[in-house]
Amino acid sequence: MLGTMLHATGDIRIEDRPDPQITRPTDAVIRTVATCVCGSDLWPYRGINPVTSPTPIGHEYVGVVEEVGTDVTTIKPGQFVIGSFIASDNTCANCRNGYQTSCLNRDFPNGCQSQYIRVPLADGTLVATPEQPSAELIPSLLALSDVMGTGWYAARAAEVKPGSTVVVVGDGAVGLSGVIAAKEMGAERIVAMSRHASRQKLALQFGATDIVDVRGDEGVARIKEMTGGIGADSVLECVGTNESMLQALRSTRPGGNVGFVGMPHDVNVPAEELFYSHFALRGGPAPVRDYLPDLIQRVLSGRIEPGKVFDLTLPLTEVAEAYKAMDERRAIKALLKP
Amino acid sequence: MLGTMLHATGDIRIEDRPDPQITRPTDAVIRTVATCVCGSDLWPYRGINPVTSPTPIGHEYVGVVEEVGTDVTTIKPGQFVIGSFIASDNTCANCRNGYQTSCLNRDFPNGCQSQYIRVPLADGTLVATPEQPSAELIPSLLALSDVMGTGWYAARAAEVKPGSTVVVVGDGAVGLSGVIAAKEMGAERIVAMSRHASRQKLALQFGATDIVDVRGDEGVARIKEMTGGIGADSVLECVGTNESMLQALRSTRPGGNVGFVGMPHDVNVPAEELFYSHFALRGGPAPVRDYLPDLIQRVLSGRIEPGKVFDLTLPLTEVAEAYKAMDERRAIKALLKP
Repeated sequence: MLGTMLHATGDIRIEDRPDPQITRPTDAVIRTVATCVCGSDLWPYRGINPVTSPTPIGHEYVGVVEEVGTDVTTIKPGQFVIGSFIASDNTCANCRNGYQTSCLNRDFPNGCQSQYIRVPLADGTLVATPEQPSAELIPSLLALSDVMGTGWYAARAAEVKPGSTVVVVGDGAVGLSGVIAAKEMGAERIVAMSRHASRQKLALQFGATDIVDVRGDEGVARIKEMTGGIGADSVLECVGTNESMLQALRSTRPGGNVGFVGMPHDVNVPAEELFYSHFALRGGPAPVRDYLPDLIQRVLSGRIEPGKVFDLTLPLTEVAEAYKAMDERRAIKALLKP
Repeated sequence: MLGTMLHATGDIRIEDRPDPQITRPTDAVIRTVATCVCGSDLWPYRGINPVTSPTPIGHEYVGVVEEVGTDVTTIKPGQFVIGSFIASDNTCANCRNGYQTSCLNRDFPNGCQSQYIRVPLADGTLVATPEQPSAELIPSLLALSDVMGTGWYAARAAEVKPGSTVVVVGDGAVGLSGVIAAKEMGAERIVAMSRHASRQKLALQFGATDIVDVRGDEGVARIKEMTGGIGADSVLECVGTNESMLQALRSTRPGGNVGFVGMPHDVNVPAEELFYSHFALRGGPAPVRDYLPDLIQRVLSGRIEPGKVFDLTLPLTEVAEAYKAMDERRAIKALLKP
């Protein structure tokens, strides 16, 4: 089969790879119908995370089940499935608490930018749609595998409630999905921080009520002006740098909540500032699995269209161009067709 | 009048001081009935916070109103009152959100280890009891001015719920008050971390179900053993050192909550650990004012007895011995009678 390998900083290649096999009785093998490139794939691509040897890459996928292991009981060959980017048994104490990405038996589907994937813990990880979805729903269903679920978690971690004032820091696919989530949770005011016209436009389509096109101290000052001097109830940090974290923290009102889902890189949380500001901070890899049944319904009913974050579609064979376009910010997010 | 001054590290003195006056129309002057020494007073006493010039000290008090400014409408001379250690107008946006210690007009009653005090923003800060309380209730009412309210906030920030498993890090007066709060909020299991027999005993009286007498990694391992390997739902950090913070964070289950009320000293919050562990962290100076009406009722009805944290009572003139006894951990908390 064809699969994507990251060889070194900036060196991404599509190659002939061995077909994945069932290796444990809880595995499934699926044929991918669509896959994509994640903002977090750019960390190693850009050399910010080191690449020590050629590695299969990609963790977002939708597809059709080809084969299941002998212990798999709910997932069946032929089903169209969506899975979280982290595999979970969905039965342990952490899963029952709604934190499947901290599953005591968690595993990692990897190399998903390929034609076939082995998914561990298939019963706990995959959710099947009631029937085969139409082609136009594929991008939105694919978005549920990570970015839409991650934006949803950011809004949940930031405790967005009906009537909340929400600020979203980061205008990538996750930040834009966070706008959708805040809107669905009933936020009254949603401020998207973005300096890019195309992303501002999409944020407004998704439900943002305001755009702030400055960042850092200036951005914080703007948010304070908009919120009677105190800051927003809920802030979604969807980048992962120290600057974006400080901007998020300082935009939050005393007693408010910050949800942070950008993988932290050299982030220092200022403990005294956190203390005196009374806000809560919760982050982490989103427990996408917990939200999949609900989010699938919202997509199938046409209530949300997170697939709009894909502004570039390419054949899997052109994966190198997909990375390049995202790296150069020519594309928000690239969908790949195997 | 007599008032306490901190002159330098370890040098605390009772002195003749000018009687406090109404300086703003929103002030009240109260005659203290009881005051006390706070764990946070020990930071400058021990030289951990520098002392640059002689300073009046103390921020916990109950007393009788002597005089009020012309704009004070709800508080009246002769009333027995309890006030928060931070003065608030109780009307601004932050106060309405329940974070009076972030009041946009906040002010600081200071020099409360004295016979008389000027309390700013009297209407927003002080709460009167329905009648003059009996002598045996004074210690418990005094505890509401800071430590009991702070323990309550720690439990609220840690989102203690009926059935929760709670760990309390710190066996000082605040940690012990946190045990009371967790019990009142319906926690099923309350683990007090303490290595001191007298404090362990009080924790058990207050509702702790378990004692853990080891700290650091060993303490964390013990908590994990007690919680099916995942950690506690809610952890109250009531110390403020980096060690106690790490112990608190690492004792919390994925998706759980840490409430931190120890004033942070050289605390580093490890951002990546916070991210991958999915728990939330909320701290700060407790909005005691928000809880006073409820907590006063609980004391007057005999439901809670936080005054038991005072295991030493001295005349105000012996304030130096009160500090010494707490510094040497001979006393949990010292009450002073003016």
